[in-house]
Parts: sequence; structure tokens; C-alpha cells
Amino acid sequence: MRLQLSTWPEVETYLKTSKGIIIPIGSTEQHGPNGLIGTDALCAEEIALGVGAAAGALVGPTIGVGMAVHHMEFPGTMTLRPSTLVLVIRDYVTALAEHGFERFLFINGHGGNIATVRAAFNEVYAELRAARGASAPEVRCRVISWWENEGVYGLSKELFGSSEGSHATPSEVSVMQYLYPDHIKEAPLDPPVAPSSQFYDARDYRRRFPDGRIGSNPGLSRPEHGKRLYDAAVAALADKYRNFVGEP
Amino acid sequence: MRLQLSTWPEVETYLKTSKGIIIPIGSTEQHGPNGLIGTDALCAEEIALGVGAAAGALVGPTIGVGMAVHHMEFPGTMTLRPSTLVLVIRDYVTALAEHGFERFLFINGHGGNIATVRAAFNEVYAELRAARGASAPEVRCRVISWWENEGVYGLSKELFGSSEGSHATPSEVSVMQYLYPDHIKEAPLDPPVAPSSQFYDARDYRRRFPDGRIGSNPGLSRPEHGKRLYDAAVAALADKYRNFVGEP
Amino acid sequence: MRLQLSTWPEVETYLKTSKGIIIPIGSTEQHGPNGLIGTDALCAEEIALGVGAAAGALVGPTIGVGMAVHHMEFPGTMTLRPSTLVLVIRDYVTALAEHGFERFLFINGHGGNIATVRAAFNEVYAELRAARGASAPEVRCRVISWWENEGVYGLSKELFGSSEGSHATPSEVSVMQYLYPDHIKEAPLDPPVAPSSQFYDARDYRRRFPDGRIGSNPGLSRPEHGKRLYDAAVAALADKYRNFVGEP
Amino acid sequence: MRLQLSTWPEVETYLKTSKGIIIPIGSTEQHGPNGLIGTDALCAEEIALGVGAAAGALVGPTIGVGMAVHHMEFPGTMTLRPSTLVLVIRDYVTALAEHGFERFLFINGHGGNIATVRAAFNEVYAELRAARGASAPEVRCRVISWWENEGVYGLSKELFGSSEGSHATPSEVSVMQYLYPDHIKEAPLDPPVAPSSQFYDARDYRRRFPDGRIGSNPGLSRPEHGKRLYDAAVAALADKYRNFVGEP
Amino acid sequence: MRLQLSTWPEVETYLKTSKGIIIPIGSTEQHGPNGLIGTDALCAEEIALGVGAAAGALVGPTIGVGMAVHHMEFPGTMTLRPSTLVLVIRDYVTALAEHGFERFLFINGHGGNIATVRAAFNEVYAELRAARGASAPEVRCRVISWWENEGVYGLSKELFGSSEGSHATPSEVSVMQYLYPDHIKEAPLDPPVAPSSQFYDARDYRRRFPDGRIGSNPGLSRPEHGKRLYDAAVAALADKYRNFVGEP
Amino acid sequence: MRLQLSTWPEVETYLKTSKGIIIPIGSTEQHGPNGLIGTDALCAEEIALGVGAAAGALVGPTIGVGMAVHHMEFPGTMTLRPSTLVLVIRDYVTALAEHGFERFLFINGHGGNIATVRAAFNEVYAELRAARGASAPEVRCRVISWWENEGVYGLSKELFGSSEGSHATPSEVSVMQYLYPDHIKEAPLDPPVAPSSQFYDARDYRRRFPDGRIGSNPGLSRPEHGKRLYDAAVAALADKYRNFVGEP
Repeated sequence: MRLQLSTWPEVETYLKTSKGIIIPIGSTEQHGPNGLIGTDALCAEEIALGVGAAAGALVGPTIGVGMAVHHMEFPGTMTLRPSTLVLVIRDYVTALAEHGFERFLFINGHGGNIATVRAAFNEVYAELRAARGASAPEVRCRVISWWENEGVYGLSKELFGSSEGSHATPSEVSVMQYLYPDHIKEAPLDPPVAPSSQFYDARDYRRRFPDGRIGSNPGLSRPEHGKRLYDAAVAALADKYRNFVGEP
Repeated sequence: MRLQLSTWPEVETYLKTSKGIIIPIGSTEQHGPNGLIGTDALCAEEIALGVGAAAGALVGPTIGVGMAVHHMEFPGTMTLRPSTLVLVIRDYVTALAEHGFERFLFINGHGGNIATVRAAFNEVYAELRAARGASAPEVRCRVISWWENEGVYGLSKELFGSSEGSHATPSEVSVMQYLYPDHIKEAPLDPPVAPSSQFYDARDYRRRFPDGRIGSNPGLSRPEHGKRLYDAAVAALADKYRNFVGEP
Repeated sequence: MRLQLSTWPEVETYLKTSKGIIIPIGSTEQHGPNGLIGTDALCAEEIALGVGAAAGALVGPTIGVGMAVHHMEFPGTMTLRPSTLVLVIRDYVTALAEHGFERFLFINGHGGNIATVRAAFNEVYAELRAARGASAPEVRCRVISWWENEGVYGLSKELFGSSEGSHATPSEVSVMQYLYPDHIKEAPLDPPVAPSSQFYDARDYRRRFPDGRIGSNPGLSRPEHGKRLYDAAVAALADKYRNFVGEP
Repeated sequence: MRLQLSTWPEVETYLKTSKGIIIPIGSTEQHGPNGLIGTDALCAEEIALGVGAAAGALVGPTIGVGMAVHHMEFPGTMTLRPSTLVLVIRDYVTALAEHGFERFLFINGHGGNIATVRAAFNEVYAELRAARGASAPEVRCRVISWWENEGVYGLSKELFGSSEGSHATPSEVSVMQYLYPDHIKEAPLDPPVAPSSQFYDARDYRRRFPDGRIGSNPGLSRPEHGKRLYDAAVAALADKYRNFVGEP
Repeated sequence: MRLQLSTWPEVETYLKTSKGIIIPIGSTEQHGPNGLIGTDALCAEEIALGVGAAAGALVGPTIGVGMAVHHMEFPGTMTLRPSTLVLVIRDYVTALAEHGFERFLFINGHGGNIATVRAAFNEVYAELRAARGASAPEVRCRVISWWENEGVYGLSKELFGSSEGSHATPSEVSVMQYLYPDHIKEAPLDPPVAPSSQFYDARDYRRRFPDGRIGSNPGLSRPEHGKRLYDAAVAALADKYRNFVGEP
Repeated sequence: MRLQLSTWPEVETYLKTSKGIIIPIGSTEQHGPNGLIGTDALCAEEIALGVGAAAGALVGPTIGVGMAVHHMEFPGTMTLRPSTLVLVIRDYVTALAEHGFERFLFINGHGGNIATVRAAFNEVYAELRAARGASAPEVRCRVISWWENEGVYGLSKELFGSSEGSHATPSEVSVMQYLYPDHIKEAPLDPPVAPSSQFYDARDYRRRFPDGRIGSNPGLSRPEHGKRLYDAAVAALADKYRNFVGEP
């Protein structure tokens, strides 16, 4: 059930039986020579919709631009400053909390978001406490990346082994190929497996990873792998959502 | 051409021949008993994609949650504070400006956004000037709502006359019915044409417009009307985009 | 009745019979070769004082520097960033709301302020709601520019026709000549009627409008025209104020 | 020379021979039973205009609402939050610095402003340095209250002795009676000399000083005293301004 | 070498041979019945000073109050909002970067800080890029918690096994007993090993962990264990610092 | 009693008999050729701990980096922007106020902090009032510099006369020599007594005071002088603290 495809009376009805909602959050950033710039946003969104369908959960609008400061040397990358992203998440959560939502599961598509998202959760808790004290609504926020579960992790390992890498991975590119079969791109990957290391700001990133990939060989991506990964992610996250809203 | 479905080398290539980009901006807010909460975001997004296709323009990610403070007494409505939305727009524009984009057309689906969006444009101009002085990139930002053109205006009048109203209108509901035929909702509308007046904060809004509509009868909505309106909007906005990027 | 020329016991007494207050808001920005930099602030202030006298309303202190980012290439122009102006308006309204004021009419002298002022009103509504929930004071804010009424509009048209333009207009210059007869300036206007178009940032503005005017011929200004315009504005706005505070 | 009564070409000419400008800053806050709420703003403004005339200095628009958080239990008091006032001063100074102004003398009418104004000056210095580094304009900001000079101090002592106090003083009330002879108010003052002490927040202030005055007997105010104080202030501050702009 | 115990000429000299600096960051928050509120700040500070001595590195002033929103139901806990901590880190880094420091190692004593610290690093990168573009200083920031290394981890396991837990651990309490032998506290611990689970806001935290501990038995703490842990941490982090500043 | 060396149950007990707390605040900035960069932070901290011991007061964590924008041309100086320092103080006070602390004495080591600290106190009062209205906790904040008392002032005059100056003074350097005898530095002071004047931004400061000192001869510093000054400061401030918490 997608919030944006519901009416307000339908949401009112939903709130009578559930206080839970899923918010997809991704990023709009370079994903190497053959990966799509919206990979993290669209994977998160589509997996969240799958989870919503599986678990009977409402799915809110996607935060499509995340924290991608380090990718800014590649054309097309967009980013919110961390301080902006904190405010966006604050506004999302406090708006929905006014209606009675209490459990917020952020399904995440971009590792670079996690720190800022967690900072934002505490900003929300602090603001609600400052404004309302003991009568503040007791919201609970959690962020889970779609690959953070045994199912997806095991499949990635089985399918791509050490060529998975950590950015522009064959797993995420495969999921996109499955979801957007009309947008499968071909591009030379040289070397096939990209280098891997720590990095700092955007200039440093581009020097270390000239085509944008980190440690990955997205040339191994296939739509059929994507389907398996997608299904695994949805199944695992639907379980996590059920547990989350069921916590006492 | 959708930014999120492009690779960074494709964006690099695009920038060699165009500095223009379209950003859809909408809202996630109640749209009366039978209107979808995502109406403003999804109309803006889909019309923007149509304009992008017609005019060969890149279309960036949608700002799906806008300024809807006044709708907050209706479950499911989300809003950014105006101050947050200013920062989001600042981040969108300045990130893209770093890559060389210079002309930003925001295709808007929500009248309530316009004031804040315009404030944001001047915030962007002021920040760039403060940071970079005479060497700041010369960005140009414009916002146009999809119904702000003779084609759509004339059609709305012809189809719905004085039942068009100004919120949860049969025009926007029709466009959604055309775009999302599986999500056409039935709901009693009493009175058929909603009341109309000025309003202030969210409590005031709800008292004046108990079911959320202002001056409209969305019971007149039809998918086939939606198609005509959609086509008219795309045609008109594609012209406006071409003029905008062609301005000296 | 001017707030700054009242004592606090007088304000306490006023609040027993009225919750309304007028706030003048203008700008300090270039007004072409013969227009005064304070035109928008001083017109708004003087008209507001006239309205206050006519309608028995308290008039608060003027916001004299507004949103004039686009005029910054002309010496003497001052501007608040939009984000600052939002905070100023927030502080004005929330301070006065603590005392019991509930209806805030901003009499505006500068078109460029309107978007930011409207964004600010929603920021106020959102902040009060976040801090106080259902017990927040129900403030109502409205902004009206002094020329937004049939009386002034008709007079401008009659007096100046198509030479009115949209910045450094003969109407506003005339009002200033009436109000400040010792500060009537002479300056060459070449061409007599300035060019007119859309514009973007400050550099763009200066290139398009080299002497600062948009579409106007302020050489037609006369103090006696100013008096008629002033009187028409005061009469129209006094009516609007009465209606506003009388709204249920 | 008042900035708001000048044209932009006149300011351009002024800048060829001077980089100095005066900004009046006051407050809109209770001034006891017979003192006017605008005392601090209007004294600062009128004295600044006198100084401008005496020293040939440009005088910018008044910051009429200052930092008066502690007066907020008295109807009619307005305040900016300190954080807002910092931004307003930042915007004033940086806007004028873009045109070439370098020496900013803030003529102050309210002791409670001083801390925040000084904080703001360092915020300005820090921001300019962060944005522009070694090429930042070298602005110099100073704040002087109109009574901070031997002339005014000696006169106050001579005229009112220990009944001067520190808020709603007979000196400032006298200056207002001189400047606004039509707004001289009569009100009982009981006790004639108000109590005096440290204070903290607004509730604490009102408990300690129930009618708003601190240590003063404004019943001693006379317009003719006001004239002497005004003249002394203008003379002393004109000297200070000349020294300030003449500093190497 | 402690920055606060150096003179500015000594720092000038240091910068000729090193661009590295260590910043300790901790928290001031409850640490269970027998743990000291300053545990995280003082462990980080003392370990950082040890690392500075071992590696010849300058050690800056400690950020003693961190992100401890979730501990706020326990008296004595202090916290910065995440948004404040971001600004503090921004100011620390940008101030030192002006002098030429380029490598910033934050030695951390509190797991709850990490997300916000990482968000802050990207805020710094983004601000420097926005202000200075390609000429921005290339700073590199890293955060390492003192227990994030094989040496400390192995020792903790050996000494405390599954009684280590994750807050108010016997490891950190032992280090404090070693560093502050005059402040070893006795307090009943019931149950000896505290419960363990996920948690959300401060109220939720206190309900789940009534005495403040998570999963730990700090009754096992001993100063001599503390010494071994301290030495292991210093040795491991000195290596990490050397590698960090030695990175190309 | 040092907050960071207490447990939360000890703080809970303390609050049963006292609502007072001391917060040391200093700066990390150049102190001339032989003064330590941490002078202001460490003097404030150590004196505060002495006062805490003498008066039985809890002493919170030091704010070690203050407002030192004007010292930024000297290597090793750190500063918070005034706007950041306001937020830090807000967070310190509001966090402690949640536990029931009501009287906050900031013992200050840096004259440059005072304006911003006072601005911050009013920001705190304003925020608490905005969020909680009449039910806001009534906190009282005061800042006192350690030399602001007859004892220290008289001693400084006796020991150093006109060579005391106002930055990098022999008084503060002496206190540091007493507190940190292993870090007494020798450095040429030329001229022995530094120049003295007004100053503005950091570049201006460095031109006027090339080695960082203002009006002082810290060559006169001696640890034994430091001991006398330290003892005088502690005695005087312990009295002030007792008076402050004893105020009705």
C-alpha cells in the first residue's frame, strides 16, 4: 500500500490497525560506467514497495537524493548536505507522527546515508523531547539497508564472490537490470574489478576510483540475478518489518 | 531522459550540448475523499517525464514532499517546513550547478509550493554570490505549475467550469486517473462542490474544508479527461522549456 | 496608533478590544535614477500609518530591509537573505502572539518580498504547531501590497498607462514625492520607458535593466499624483484591515 | 544623508569619498508606565540622523526590533531571538560591504543589544574569512550606545542624579519627549524611583520590576532636558564617527 | 604534545614537519551505578594523549560532550543535539585547516557519537567545496574508537568474556579506575549482567535498562585490567595514526 | 565535585540539596610568544574546580574552544563561530535543566567569549519560553570571568601595574606557570610591553599585535604570582557562587 496512491480516509483507516510505515531512502549518484545514477533510490523504492505488499505496510514517498558528497566529481551526482538531510528526515518523521505513526522503518539503498540517517533519528528524538517533554509521541526509527540480511548477502557471495566490491556492485546493478530492463547499459570496465580503499572527499574519491566503482565488477550483472536478489531482499525485510512493528 | 536512469558518462555527454534540466516538485498531501495523497507529486513527475521526452531534456529526481503545512490536520499529509524546502532546493541546484547545469525548470504540481520555491531561488542566488562573488556560476531557476498555460486552463474550464475549484480539482484527479487507472477511488462528496474561501493554518483549513477539498467537484473526474489534460500540459511545458533554455 | 509611540499599559488596553495589528514591510533597494532607495519601505510605512489612523489599528515597526537579492548590483541596495527574512517574520509574529495578538496584516511595499513572506507565514504556523500542538495560538497572517486594490490600480492606469512598468514605477515615485517633497530627484531617463522582461540573479538583472528600472517611466511622477494614490491605498487597505479582523 | 532618501547614483558618488556608514539599532520594548515602546529605536534613529548631518555620513535603515527577550512579559514588547539578530546584522553588513562600504558604526539605543551585536560582528568576520579567505573585504564594525560618552553621562548625572536608573530612564524618556512632543504620556509612578537589581529571564524580570522600570524615575523627564541630551549625544558621536572612519 | 600546552610559535614549527592532529571526542553521560559520567570523554582524552606521546602527534582539545540523547533520562547526562555536534566538528576542523592541518584523527570514546561524527565530516567536505571549489584545502578526517582494534578487543574478551556488554562495560570502567584511582566507586549491580537489546529514545532506553548499563557487568572492573587495556589502545592507535598521516 | 567524576546516582543525590552547577568556559587561542594556547580554557577549568571544592558545587565539563575569531592569524588558534557557541551553550544548559539544575554559573577565562555567552543565555531563555511557555523551567545563567573581582584585580595591579595589558597578560601566564610548572616557556618579547589599541578582524589584529600580545609584558610572569592569583580568584568566585545559588 503506497501512501501516495491512498486517500486520506484510507490512511485514517490504516492507522486504526497499524502505527507502522516504511520510508525508502536512496541516493542519486554515479554508479560507475554502466550503473544507473538512480540505482540506490530506485532499488530502495522498489524493494520497499515489495515489502509493503508482502507485509501489508504503508510505504511513504522515497527520499531520492541522499548524502553523496564524495561522489560529486562525477557528472549527474546530486547530494543533500548532511545537515539538510537531517532536517528532511526530521520533517518526514514529525509530520507522520502527528497523525499517529510511531514505527518508522527506513529501507535504505546507500551505505553513505547511514551515518546521517542515524544522526537524524537522534535529532528527532531530541527535538520532540525539547518541545513536548514527557508528552512527546514515542516514535521509533530504524534504518536497514536492503542488503543487510543473510539472504542477500549469501546470494551476492555465491553469484559474484570477491567481485562484489562496495560501490556500483554487480548486485545492485543486477537488481536495476531486473527492475528496468529497458535501461541496461553496456560500457567498458577497465580493469574489470575496480580498485578498493578508504577515501575522503570528492577529489580524493575520483583520484582513487577514476570510473566511480569501488572494488566491483558490475560487468557480471544479469537481470536474472537481480530478480533473485530482489526477492531475497523483500522476503528478509518483510520479516524485519513485522518484527519491528510487533516489538512491545 | 531521466537522470536516475542514466549513467554518469551519459550525463557528461548531455552537458556538451545542453545546460538545461527539469526538476519535478510536488506534494504529499490530502486531496479530498477520492483524490490520492500523491497527486501533486505524481502529476508533476509524470508530466515532467513527458516534457523531457518531448523536448529532449534531462529530468531529475522529484521533490515529492513539499510545503503542505495547511493540510496537516488530514491523516497521511506530509510536509517540509518552508525552511527545509529552501535548503533542499538549494542543495539540488548547487549540486547540479557544480556539473555545469545552468537552467533549472521546476515543473510544479502544488500551488502551495510556489512561494517557498521562489524564496529558495533567491537563497541560491544569494549563497552563490556570497561564496563566489563575480565568479559564481550564473544559474537561472524558474518554476512553472503544470496548469499554468492556456491549453490546460482552457480545457479545465471547458470540462469542469466552475466545479474546478482550487484543491482536489477534477483536473488533477482526472490526470491521476489517467496515469494510475488501478487506483481510481470512489467516495461520497457532500456537497458535490466544496466550499471556497481564504484560509490560514491547518486547524483553520480543516474547519473551513471538512473533507479537504476547496471549491471543487472531483466527482467529475474521468481518465479520458486526464489524458487530454496531460497531453495539453506536456505540449505547453515542452514549449516553455525550449524557450527557457534558448533564452540568451 | 503606532506601537512604538505607545506605552505598554496602552497596548494592554488595546488588546482588550482588538487582536489585530498591522506590520509594514518594504525594502531598501535601488529604484532607478530618480527613485529613492527607501521607496518600498517608506511607502509601506506611511500607508500603514494612514491605515492605522483610518481603522483604529495598531501599527508595529517597519521591516525596512526585505528580499532584494536581485538588486544587489546597484550601490546602496540592501537585502536580507530569504532565510533571514523568514526568521525575522517568525520573531515578529511569535513575539506579538505571546501578548495575545492574533491577526497580522503585513502591508507590503515590494513585490519581491511576497514569496518569502508567504513562506514565513507557513514557517510560523508549523513552528507553533510543533511547539504547542493543539494549544498553539491561532494566528492569522496576511500580506497585501499597497497597490493590490482596484482604487490604486485604476488610478495608476489612468495616470501612467503603459508607462507604469513594474519597478521604479511612476506610482511609487509619485507617492514618495508626496511624502518626501524635499527629496524629489531629477535624473536623466534614457530611454524614457525602461525595458521589460523576466530576470534571474543580480548580474542578469543589471544587464537587462542597466539603470535599474523595469518597464517604467518615473519621469511622469508628480507629488499630486502621489497624494491621490496614497489616499486611494489608505482607503482600500483600511477596508481590507476591517474585513480581516472582522472575519469569524 | 539618509540612505533610504538617496538614489543609487548618489550612493555611488558617496562611495568615491567615503567608505563609512551609520546603522541605528534599537529595540521595541516596554519602557515603564510613561515611556514609549519605541524609545530605544527612535532615539537611536534620530540621534543617528543628527550624527549623519553633523558628520556628512550616510545613515542606513534602523534595526528597530532588537534583543528584548527579558521584557516579554509586558504587552507590546517585541524581540528578535539573538540568533536572528546575528543574521540580520550579518546581512546588513555583507550587503553593504558588497558595494564597498568598510566602516560600520552601529549607533545603539538599547543596552540589551550590545552582547548580541558584538557576537554578530565576529560572525561576520568569520563568515567573510570562511568564504573569501585572504581576499575577503576588510570590514570594521563598531557599536556605540548614544549615552556612552562624557557629554551625555555628565548631563544625565547633573539632571537626574541617582534617579537615572538603568531602564526607562529619565534621560531617554526626555529625549523622546523632545523628539515626539505630541506623545508625552502621564502615568503614576509608584514608587517614584523603581527598584534595581540583577535579573534573568522575562518572568524573573517582571517579578522584580512590576511596572517595567529599573532604578529610574522617569517622572523627572522634560523635553528641554531631552534637547540638551540629544545635542550632547549628537556632538559626541559625530566626533566618534569621524575618528572611526579616519582610523588608518 | 598537547596543543593547549603549546605556544603558537611551537605550533608553527610543528606544522613544518607534520599536518596531522588528534582530536579526542567523548561524551558526558551516565555509565551505570558505578561508572563515571565522564568515562567516554576522559578515556578518549587520556588515550589520545598517550597516542600523541607515542607518535609525536599534536593533540587538540577534547570534545567532552557528545551525542547522548538516549541517556537523557539519567541525571547528570549531557548531550549536544546532533546538529550542534556537526557544527562543532565543522568549526574544529575548518579552524585548524586554516593553519595548514590536513589530517584529522578523532579518537572516540563513545559509540553513540560515530554516526554524527561521520555526518559532520561530510558536512565539512561539502562546505569547503561550496566555499572554495577546486582550491579548497584537502582535509582528511577519520574517527576511530579506542576499542576498535585487535589488541583491545582480544583483551576485553579474555578479561570479561560475555560480561563485557556494550554500555558501562568493565573495559571502560577499568580504564577509568586505572586513570582515576581516587574515584573508584562501589555500587550494587542487580542483576550482575545487565539486559541487552535494541533501543530508541531516552524513555525507551530507561525502561529497558533501568540502571543504565547494557549487557555489561562493570563489577568485574579492576585498575590493573584498565592499565593493560589502556596500553593496548595506545599502542594500536599510535600505529593507526602513523599510517593515517603517512597515507599518500 | 566534578560532574565527569561522579556517577548518575551521585548526581541524583546532589540535586536533592542543590540546583547549582558551574561550567568552565575558555578558549584555545594564541597567547603570545611564551603563553600557552590553552591558557583561557585551563585557567577557567582549574579555577572552577577550586571553586567547586571550596563551595561544594558540582563542576561540569569545560567548553574549551570559545570565540577567538580575531586570533585566527596565529597557528594553533581554534574558534567556534559565535552562532555555534550559542548552540553549544543552549545544549549544555537545556540538557542540565532537564535534570533539575536551575542556576548556571559560567566561570570564564576569555574576555572575547562574554558577548556571545550573554547572547546565548537569552537564546536559552527565548527557546524555553517558546517551547514550554509558562511551564518552562526557570533557569538562571550568569557568566563571571575569573579576574572580575577585587582580589584578583588588586593583585594584578600590585604585581604588574601597567604591564598587565589585556591579552597574554602576566597574570594569566603566571596562573598557568603555577598550574603547569612543566610547561613554562621562554621566548623573546620585543618590545617587552606590547602595543595596545582597538582591533577588528583577524588580519587587523595580527597587523596591530604582531606577536599576539596586547599591552602586556608576560615576561614578568612567575609561578608564585600565579599561586596568589589563583587563590584570590577561587576565594572570590566561591563567594559569588554561594551568593548566586542563595539568591531568592
